[in-house]
Amino acid sequence: MAEIIVIGHRNPDTDSIITAIAYAFLKNKIDNKNNYIAARCGEINNETKAVLKKASLNEPMLIENISGKKVILIDHNEFTQACDGIEKAEILEVIDHHKINFSYPLPIYYHAEPIGATSTIIAKIFFEKNIKIEKNIALALLAAILSDTVVFKSSTTTNEDREIAKKLAEIAEVKDIEAFGIEIKREKTSLLGKSIEEIILGDFKEYKFAKGKVGIGQIEIVDFKEVEELKKEIINGMEKIKNSENFDLVLLMATNILLGDTQLLCVGKIEKAEEAFNLKAKENCIYLKNVMSRKKDIVPKIEKVFS
Amino acid sequence: MAEIIVIGHRNPDTDSIITAIAYAFLKNKIDNKNNYIAARCGEINNETKAVLKKASLNEPMLIENISGKKVILIDHNEFTQACDGIEKAEILEVIDHHKINFSYPLPIYYHAEPIGATSTIIAKIFFEKNIKIEKNIALALLAAILSDTVVFKSSTTTNEDREIAKKLAEIAEVKDIEAFGIEIKREKTSLLGKSIEEIILGDFKEYKFAKGKVGIGQIEIVDFKEVEELKKEIINGMEKIKNSENFDLVLLMATNILLGDTQLLCVGKIEKAEEAFNLKAKENCIYLKNVMSRKKDIVPKIEKVFS
Repeated sequence: MAEIIVIGHRNPDTDSIITAIAYAFLKNKIDNKNNYIAARCGEINNETKAVLKKASLNEPMLIENISGKKVILIDHNEFTQACDGIEKAEILEVIDHHKINFSYPLPIYYHAEPIGATSTIIAKIFFEKNIKIEKNIALALLAAILSDTVVFKSSTTTNEDREIAKKLAEIAEVKDIEAFGIEIKREKTSLLGKSIEEIILGDFKEYKFAKGKVGIGQIEIVDFKEVEELKKEIINGMEKIKNSENFDLVLLMATNILLGDTQLLCVGKIEKAEEAFNLKAKENCIYLKNVMSRKKDIVPKIEKVFS
Repeated sequence: MAEIIVIGHRNPDTDSIITAIAYAFLKNKIDNKNNYIAARCGEINNETKAVLKKASLNEPMLIENISGKKVILIDHNEFTQACDGIEKAEILEVIDHHKINFSYPLPIYYHAEPIGATSTIIAKIFFEKNIKIEKNIALALLAAILSDTVVFKSSTTTNEDREIAKKLAEIAEVKDIEAFGIEIKREKTSLLGKSIEEIILGDFKEYKFAKGKVGIGQIEIVDFKEVEELKKEIINGMEKIKNSENFDLVLLMATNILLGDTQLLCVGKIEKAEEAFNLKAKENCIYLKNVMSRKKDIVPKIEKVFS
């Protein structure tokens, strides 16, 4: 009986943690020849902790290095976002909803869809294979969809995310989906009690483009004042990270999930960010109207100016 | 109504042609907002012609360049194997069963499985979505599975290929699947009447590895004598292609589909092929027992010695 690790990306968010748990559960149901273990490569954030508690689910196992292990990558495919040791892991499957930048010398199972959450894909697989979704797993998948789509406000949201969320809400006996979503997001949006490092790196991804290394973090808030008050300290913190990690550009998206806009804090080659969005920065900030998604709204434009 | 091109790889084989037709058919059934057009980027081989005739299907449209077009890539993902203009095409989906070497700046639908034929995946999608497969399309998909798995003898064959083939055979009213498969393969295996160029380039793929450019062709035969008689001319032809296209190594797999073995003809850096298989070449030939699949048995080993 082989041990197979089901694992999401570094700096795991709710979608990454919940899909690892749910997909390991599903695979163990349909394949009794192997043992699928949900794992994570990083600390669990407050929002995810609250979801796990609501759903009475245990935290996935922390793994620091997956070298030599059989793995299923969930909610990511790029090696820069994967757990250490990925170059020497045996990759069996990828289930994801991000842009693809992937190379592997053997044919494998790869399932990606351009939708709001990997949780939507996992729920669809349960429904397609006619496998019963336990009430607590339905609750967790619903919370993860609402988290990743920012309560359906992210531009990545599709009708399928909404439809699958409805089906999950029925199983989980959640009556008001939007209210449940805002309750979930509130766990994450407060900056109170967080260190500057946590604010910048809590949901931070690193990209190696042809002509530059860029780090893009994201925080979600319900009031821009929260960021204004801490702006100097955040910019200082971003400078430090840029210098110590040799980034060409470090960005922090402060996304107001109620307004649907993003204040983009920039450090490093700010002129590249200005070029990407065709807007001037003011005191290290670019205000982006109707922008909520790092993947869809930010990464492609930044990649363009660095390639 | 947007026009979307469904297209397989260069030098199309039966699996590439039939899946383009079947998937365009399926997409037109489920999406009436777009017009899906089956296409091909290369001449149709004799085997595929025979299958199209048996199934009363038209040839997909020949396209020389897909720059600026919306496309669905079928049965391939690597740009070196795609139609000209792929760098400037808008890729909407990939459905494939090969190793993955793919990068695209937006999230898309990507569905790959490590199984014997893309036709198996397409047939599965029909069954999952409960879309009726017409008798002639079932016949063509069955023929393509049998072609790509070399009548289930290729090492890439899975139980799923066999099971889906059975279901298709029922719809197509084919009683003896193996006999039908051998009938299909016979269309392709004879070298009679083919030019040396057709023999080498009829099913030829180009690979750019870190340390070298390699071309790998494959012919299927039922008797090694056929190749023996033409060996000098084939080797000369391979030399010419190596020189004109700057290949480091050109290989031609002469695969005996009845024995399940391959005579590998090598031109260029033969020592690299020897290293890959740990066997000495004899007069430009390496005999490989129980080897039938370029993708599974040849490419990974050649990639290793060129990386």
